[in-house]
Amino acid sequence: MKVNPARFLSDLHALRQFGASGVGKGIVRPAYSEADVAARAWLAGRFKEAGLNVHYDPMGSLFGLADGPSILLGSHSDSQPEGGWLDGALGVIAALEVARAAKEAGGPAVSVVSFQDEEGRFGVTTGSTVWSGALSLEEADKLTDRTGVTLAQARESMALMAGDFVDPAQFSGFIEMHIEQGPWLDQAGDVVGVVTDIVGIRDMRITFEGEQNHAGTTPMHLRKDAFQALGAFNALIAERFQNVVTPQTVWTIGHVKLHPDAHSIVPGRATFSMQWRDGDANRLARMEDVIRRAAHDVAEARELEVTFGPMLGLEPVAMDAKSRGALEASAQALTEGRWRLMPSGALHDATNVAQHMPVAMLFVPSINGISHAFEEDTLEVDLVKGLEVLAGAIERLG
Amino acid sequence: MKVNPARFLSDLHALRQFGASGVGKGIVRPAYSEADVAARAWLAGRFKEAGLNVHYDPMGSLFGLADGPSILLGSHSDSQPEGGWLDGALGVIAALEVARAAKEAGGPAVSVVSFQDEEGRFGVTTGSTVWSGALSLEEADKLTDRTGVTLAQARESMALMAGDFVDPAQFSGFIEMHIEQGPWLDQAGDVVGVVTDIVGIRDMRITFEGEQNHAGTTPMHLRKDAFQALGAFNALIAERFQNVVTPQTVWTIGHVKLHPDAHSIVPGRATFSMQWRDGDANRLARMEDVIRRAAHDVAEARELEVTFGPMLGLEPVAMDAKSRGALEASAQALTEGRWRLMPSGALHDATNVAQHMPVAMLFVPSINGISHAFEEDTLEVDLVKGLEVLAGAIERLG
Repeated sequence: MKVNPARFLSDLHALRQFGASGVGKGIVRPAYSEADVAARAWLAGRFKEAGLNVHYDPMGSLFGLADGPSILLGSHSDSQPEGGWLDGALGVIAALEVARAAKEAGGPAVSVVSFQDEEGRFGVTTGSTVWSGALSLEEADKLTDRTGVTLAQARESMALMAGDFVDPAQFSGFIEMHIEQGPWLDQAGDVVGVVTDIVGIRDMRITFEGEQNHAGTTPMHLRKDAFQALGAFNALIAERFQNVVTPQTVWTIGHVKLHPDAHSIVPGRATFSMQWRDGDANRLARMEDVIRRAAHDVAEARELEVTFGPMLGLEPVAMDAKSRGALEASAQALTEGRWRLMPSGALHDATNVAQHMPVAMLFVPSINGISHAFEEDTLEVDLVKGLEVLAGAIERLG
Repeated sequence: MKVNPARFLSDLHALRQFGASGVGKGIVRPAYSEADVAARAWLAGRFKEAGLNVHYDPMGSLFGLADGPSILLGSHSDSQPEGGWLDGALGVIAALEVARAAKEAGGPAVSVVSFQDEEGRFGVTTGSTVWSGALSLEEADKLTDRTGVTLAQARESMALMAGDFVDPAQFSGFIEMHIEQGPWLDQAGDVVGVVTDIVGIRDMRITFEGEQNHAGTTPMHLRKDAFQALGAFNALIAERFQNVVTPQTVWTIGHVKLHPDAHSIVPGRATFSMQWRDGDANRLARMEDVIRRAAHDVAEARELEVTFGPMLGLEPVAMDAKSRGALEASAQALTEGRWRLMPSGALHDATNVAQHMPVAMLFVPSINGISHAFEEDTLEVDLVKGLEVLAGAIERLG
């Protein structure tokens, strides 16, 4: 099969117009936003033109289905609150181009997907998590975003288009092409990374509830300051993690909300996100232990209450040997040795899809390793090389 | 003169309807909000009925002016984002009642004021700061609230009513009645506190700017995490303050905003409020030193940038001996010894007004010391006792 780089790049830039941030190539297209729903409608049109059967599932994940058994390619088209133009979008448009090229070449049959809410407005890879069966739609509907909107409310905007969940049995496997989102390919000068496994992730919200009071008349020793509890917790886990983590382990407090969030008031409540990632499921569990105990210890010492939100998580997942082998052979044939095996520190929809079928992933470089930011970018020559490696692997598998 | 407790309490409860939170007696009436502007319009009507000349100054501070020379009483009617029903409102309505009673008794002449933005949507006691001349209107107009609205934009909502600034030379002095907002009167069972001096305050916003990146693919040792910088700063000042502060000194980080504030993104920017208070101006300056150096040290060690917003501040202020003496004599005559001398840990408009005339303050108890919260309250019998002590002092001064 022969992919068409111009057609591929043209579609990739067209998708970028939905939710364009006006800052570089940046994107503001969170799940279920107007821009996200409009982007999916445009994608659906392109899928139809490519001869695929358009289908939205109840979560709003968009499929372009080939007739009969097929291999599934794709990623997601929702973005972070401030996201890059390639994160997810690249895998969806590359899938579309390979599906078109395969059809023009008379096979193999390729289906395409853009999962909904990979970026976790309501959790973590929410659309593919529900599709995988790890979380029921009923449970997922109770999840809220940071402003208190429930998933049930958000997906009403797509309810008219939604059909049933797609039966995964029709797919022989899933391959997701993605930007690396880290520094390794860029620093090494490689153009393709074939993923060995995806690290696991845990994510929850934690709340310290203390006592809201006047910031002038409440002596320091009588305060139950929820921000100070957060500060103590943050320092305590860093200390206690020392004997648990590896240099590859990461943890992040990326969201903080104080209440009432005013200069002259001792904050009575602090709600924050706690996310941690590692390739070893046992280590993830030991970290959870440290986190829960540290939060309890801080709350007890400072006479505050602590509550934990529901924990969302994805287990570490090894890539399928056969699909990965096809990607390796294709990369070897097309990149003059400028490719490498690597783990994925970012999680991906492929983690969930692995519940139902063999999965594999390939990466292209992120310039300076920057991602989840407007500045995210990749050289067009690398985008095209990744597309060609993906197409070569599909030929080998088909 | 004879104050009318029923008329006083009726007006106090009527004012509470503007911005009623629906939670207990709580209030949501920040400066320049619809509720604040409506409350001032209602107050203006009551001032007029009391025979006072209604006047708004360019900041939106509302005066009810007696003819000729007079003593000024009052406080503020704006509230914290989540405020109590008495904070400020008590002093305004008590002033109104004393003005009415004095008029009915044939003197002395009493004017009334409700200053604008005492609670610091745009800084600290903004309305009386500008009136005092410590900050020009032009400079003040550049101040922004936490959502980026400038004071210039906010005060447009009151521009049609605004006249010139009131000449302070017409006032012989200023007395502000207020709730204590701390635990001391309530714990001691006293009903009135006569203030000796008001602590000074410093307030500024600080921003750490690091590097926004992916929370899965960025190793811990390569991160420039702005929230972690805030955590380190918070711990470092607590340590360095140990040799500087007294048990009466307080400091607060009450507002925190991360950017982009998402679970899966290493925060690239953290903006937060830093406020500190003490009765000693030299100590306030030494604390500022610690704060600026600690922020620089943290930024340097972690390779982030730090920037400091404009610093707003009020110097510690001693109360006027004569006015304070009148309050003491009145309290002694009316409370059967259940009153005390005390400093004010909270700042008040009186601090600014002291630039132009003698000032004094009296406190009534806050139940459980709670303030800047919906739960804030005071027994009605104590509210009335405070009113009577205030009226008695005005008689003595007049």
